[in-house]
Amino acid sequence: MSKVLSRRDLEFLLYEWLDVESLTTRERFADHSRETFDAFLDVSQQIAERDFAPHNRKNDLNEPTFDGERVTIIPEVSKALKAFAESGLIAAPLSAEHGGMQLPAVVARACFLWFQAANTATSAYAMLTSGNSHLLLAHGTKEQIETYVYPMLEGRFTGTMCLSEPQAGSALSDVLTKATPAGDGTYRVTGSKMWISGGDHELSENIIHLVLARVAGAPAGVKGLSLFIVPKKDVKTGERNGVTLAGLNHKMGYRGTTNTVLAFDDATGYLVGEEGRGLAYMFLMMNEARIGVGAGAVALGYTGYLHALAYAREREQGRPLDDKNPTAPPVAIVKHPDVRRMLLASKSYVEGGLALILYAAKLLDERSEENDLLLDVLTPIVKAWPSQWCRLADDHAIQVHGGYGYTREYPVEQFYRDNRLNSIHEGTDGIQALDLLGRKVTMKGGAGLALLLDRIRATASSVKGDLGEPVLAACDRLAATTAKLWAKGDPSSALVNATAYLDAAGHLVIAWLWLEQHLAAGDKEGDFYDGKRLAARYFVTHELPRIGPMLDLLDSGDTLLRDMDDAWLG
Amino acid sequence: MSKVLSRRDLEFLLYEWLDVESLTTRERFADHSRETFDAFLDVSQQIAERDFAPHNRKNDLNEPTFDGERVTIIPEVSKALKAFAESGLIAAPLSAEHGGMQLPAVVARACFLWFQAANTATSAYAMLTSGNSHLLLAHGTKEQIETYVYPMLEGRFTGTMCLSEPQAGSALSDVLTKATPAGDGTYRVTGSKMWISGGDHELSENIIHLVLARVAGAPAGVKGLSLFIVPKKDVKTGERNGVTLAGLNHKMGYRGTTNTVLAFDDATGYLVGEEGRGLAYMFLMMNEARIGVGAGAVALGYTGYLHALAYAREREQGRPLDDKNPTAPPVAIVKHPDVRRMLLASKSYVEGGLALILYAAKLLDERSEENDLLLDVLTPIVKAWPSQWCRLADDHAIQVHGGYGYTREYPVEQFYRDNRLNSIHEGTDGIQALDLLGRKVTMKGGAGLALLLDRIRATASSVKGDLGEPVLAACDRLAATTAKLWAKGDPSSALVNATAYLDAAGHLVIAWLWLEQHLAAGDKEGDFYDGKRLAARYFVTHELPRIGPMLDLLDSGDTLLRDMDDAWLG
Repeated sequence: MSKVLSRRDLEFLLYEWLDVESLTTRERFADHSRETFDAFLDVSQQIAERDFAPHNRKNDLNEPTFDGERVTIIPEVSKALKAFAESGLIAAPLSAEHGGMQLPAVVARACFLWFQAANTATSAYAMLTSGNSHLLLAHGTKEQIETYVYPMLEGRFTGTMCLSEPQAGSALSDVLTKATPAGDGTYRVTGSKMWISGGDHELSENIIHLVLARVAGAPAGVKGLSLFIVPKKDVKTGERNGVTLAGLNHKMGYRGTTNTVLAFDDATGYLVGEEGRGLAYMFLMMNEARIGVGAGAVALGYTGYLHALAYAREREQGRPLDDKNPTAPPVAIVKHPDVRRMLLASKSYVEGGLALILYAAKLLDERSEENDLLLDVLTPIVKAWPSQWCRLADDHAIQVHGGYGYTREYPVEQFYRDNRLNSIHEGTDGIQALDLLGRKVTMKGGAGLALLLDRIRATASSVKGDLGEPVLAACDRLAATTAKLWAKGDPSSALVNATAYLDAAGHLVIAWLWLEQHLAAGDKEGDFYDGKRLAARYFVTHELPRIGPMLDLLDSGDTLLRDMDDAWLG
Repeated sequence: MSKVLSRRDLEFLLYEWLDVESLTTRERFADHSRETFDAFLDVSQQIAERDFAPHNRKNDLNEPTFDGERVTIIPEVSKALKAFAESGLIAAPLSAEHGGMQLPAVVARACFLWFQAANTATSAYAMLTSGNSHLLLAHGTKEQIETYVYPMLEGRFTGTMCLSEPQAGSALSDVLTKATPAGDGTYRVTGSKMWISGGDHELSENIIHLVLARVAGAPAGVKGLSLFIVPKKDVKTGERNGVTLAGLNHKMGYRGTTNTVLAFDDATGYLVGEEGRGLAYMFLMMNEARIGVGAGAVALGYTGYLHALAYAREREQGRPLDDKNPTAPPVAIVKHPDVRRMLLASKSYVEGGLALILYAAKLLDERSEENDLLLDVLTPIVKAWPSQWCRLADDHAIQVHGGYGYTREYPVEQFYRDNRLNSIHEGTDGIQALDLLGRKVTMKGGAGLALLLDRIRATASSVKGDLGEPVLAACDRLAATTAKLWAKGDPSSALVNATAYLDAAGHLVIAWLWLEQHLAAGDKEGDFYDGKRLAARYFVTHELPRIGPMLDLLDSGDTLLRDMDDAWLG
């Protein structure tokens, strides 16, 4: 069995649960069938296992270097990205008018998970390029699309998103980079950008930066931000633009992806859309990136789980708790309750997280006002929940391996380090919490949350036995807590424990998706379905109860964190 | 303010809470006074900050290497250990008859925390040597003490503990290393030992291994294990003994401490005490090592917290939640509720953990049947709780730093990696859980747990206001849950959720120690005391409620993890 990802689980979720085949009744997907979906999954698994997984550790041990002139990256990365480009996967979900194959987003998402699980660092170049091109397809001119997007889709160019600056990470309203009209329709962009993944390298003919900057005279705050295309080199002349690599950041994990400080100095930039709409455009890319980050967290947790499971089945040590005979042969550690606890918890996190990612992706294939609203509400959970809980699966994977897991001779410690980034980039967990409680559950008079809870209740009501009740009760509690928090309309008290709210809502959503999987498993026989029923039971009985104290805290109206004096911290 | 450790907090805990000065009324400590205690704390802080902290990162980036002949370690380690040896700290807590200064264990523990916080990898050599010499002082002959212990106390020799083997980590009953009587009173030791920290290096004239091995004909299981002194070199001739370095393990963190595979091949060994009592002797060292590991986890969490706090006060970004004016100047991130949450939680973990460590150490200074029993019950919590929660403080420290925290330009990512080991070595968290629920709370008819709960209740009853009640209620619940779990006397059902029991008992113990600190702070004025009262309130209101669902699970008699079929895992 693959230790990268479970094809069986993907197929269960896509075909037995989400009924992705039914998408082919829609005009956009009419040329597709289970056969074409499977073909994409086949090629993804094949390239991921052949070209991505084998250099995952090498890329970690030999991270990119910068000699002041050029960035050097191990050659396997370029080879892998070439194979990825040749597969056509990057363009596959696009419309035929853009050369795409109109593959459903949910299938494309499943395909890309293979690459993220096999080698998160190498896959990041592809993910950024994809997000960049999607933004330009939505908001760029025909000429911009032809000039920049098509070469990205062919794998000749790569893309970045340049938002953060050294003094402005979470607070984009403080972006200082300036753009000055040059008089010929172009702009001159000057400033410093920080944390730019894929910001420099020799992996592609050109790098297309999408840069947030402020035109002189624009208002303060996010409303003054505009978006610019700043290519590394002029696409016609090949001359270097005024963007240089100021340095590489050296990270704990995710080492194979260059992460850069970029200096823009009178660089030629091309406005995307209208001035002042930069952040609005960027949010399209950011929402896609947030789902991508959540997916990356799931992928790393999933591969960690599969490695831990395989190890626990082959590693023999100790005896059952009620066997006092020291001459009895040792058993595989998968027989010990605490190892089973870590494995089953991890299974519930990574398979639950995978269900969440695919559910969210399918909403993009069935766009409607309702589904758009639901995706808006779910996005902060899609980003933050796997970043926390699938990271815990990697933590458990180390623990299951014992001392071996702490060494670089085994892969799990790298998964743990790599996955730590996901709670930080594309909006920290804390930012996601403010987004959920501060915007998403209040917008449109709370319609988004109501819709989510309706869907959860519908599922929970269909589940026979004792698993539906706790989920129904949790829905009622979350609704009541939300109303109570916002009763006064005062953000400074409503949002003080926003993280507890995100945690509670996240666990409720995953409990729901486990009930969904329980229903999809139905009475089907076999270890696989028994496993789904087992994990659903585990999540509802061992995990969901965690939210009780979180909701109690929120209901209590506690504002300790606001009212404290930070001088008291030490 | 030092970012290694808080001297102010140490002084509060030692003098204002534990009243360590009162120990000087005991004959053993009669020559001591606050002045001598402070002098030891002074010199510890000084050496830790001068000789240990500066090479912490260098040691991580330049881990020990082995060329097949010799191990190379950066020279700063040797220099630091020399300064440590010259300070006399390693012998300080010993009796005068052994050249010690009869320093109370609690003060010695506080001193050593400075080294662990400044440089956990370098301090490990000293910790292992200390544990080794304490074991030999208790169980070695006069000659063994003179030959091996005194040079260790002088810093000329270092020591190790050789328990684990490649196939026997948690399960020591499966140790295969053999010892054969040579006829002259010595033994020939043959076998392979794994995970031996400090197992080879050039930092000392000699390395004294304490090796668990099985004499031919000894019974299976732990009762057949004996303990041997196996020096790297013969102390008289200087000739190499039959122990060679088979290889170094390369770890995720804690990189500066050599961790080795050692091959024993007819090595000359000297029996410690009697045959068949090896594990019993080793437990003395292991219990000390477990407190040391807990202390190391606290130290790494503490320094992470101090770094995060300093960063949060200087880093400006964003505006208050109710300030919509984008031209308002940004505030220090310590003003944001979610940053305060991470900082206050971390404060409650590291200061709570520190209180636990010092409380446990002081029990060694006031030995009685009751205190020994209490220490027995507390030891698994002392080991495991900080390994989990003070590690979370390091996790929060990364998150507070944002992207910067994920880079190797800042120290917190190293603390996070280093601290990951503490849940594994000296008995994993899962092993501690079995020790607590399977042995410690049941031994002597449950007298240990009863004693612990009596002490907690006594404290909680003295706290005015609303903080004592939840702790009293939690005591009642834990007692009832324990009785219920063991009502049938069936280990396979009682122990299935042992980890939840450890987690719940651990949080209750820390809540108790926060009430203790709350009482010690009393009505004293100033930010420091306000901070203690704040953290006590935080722990009782935000953290203690976590144990509710854990105890619910235990009370439910759930045996899902035992009853599941592991074929269902995937």
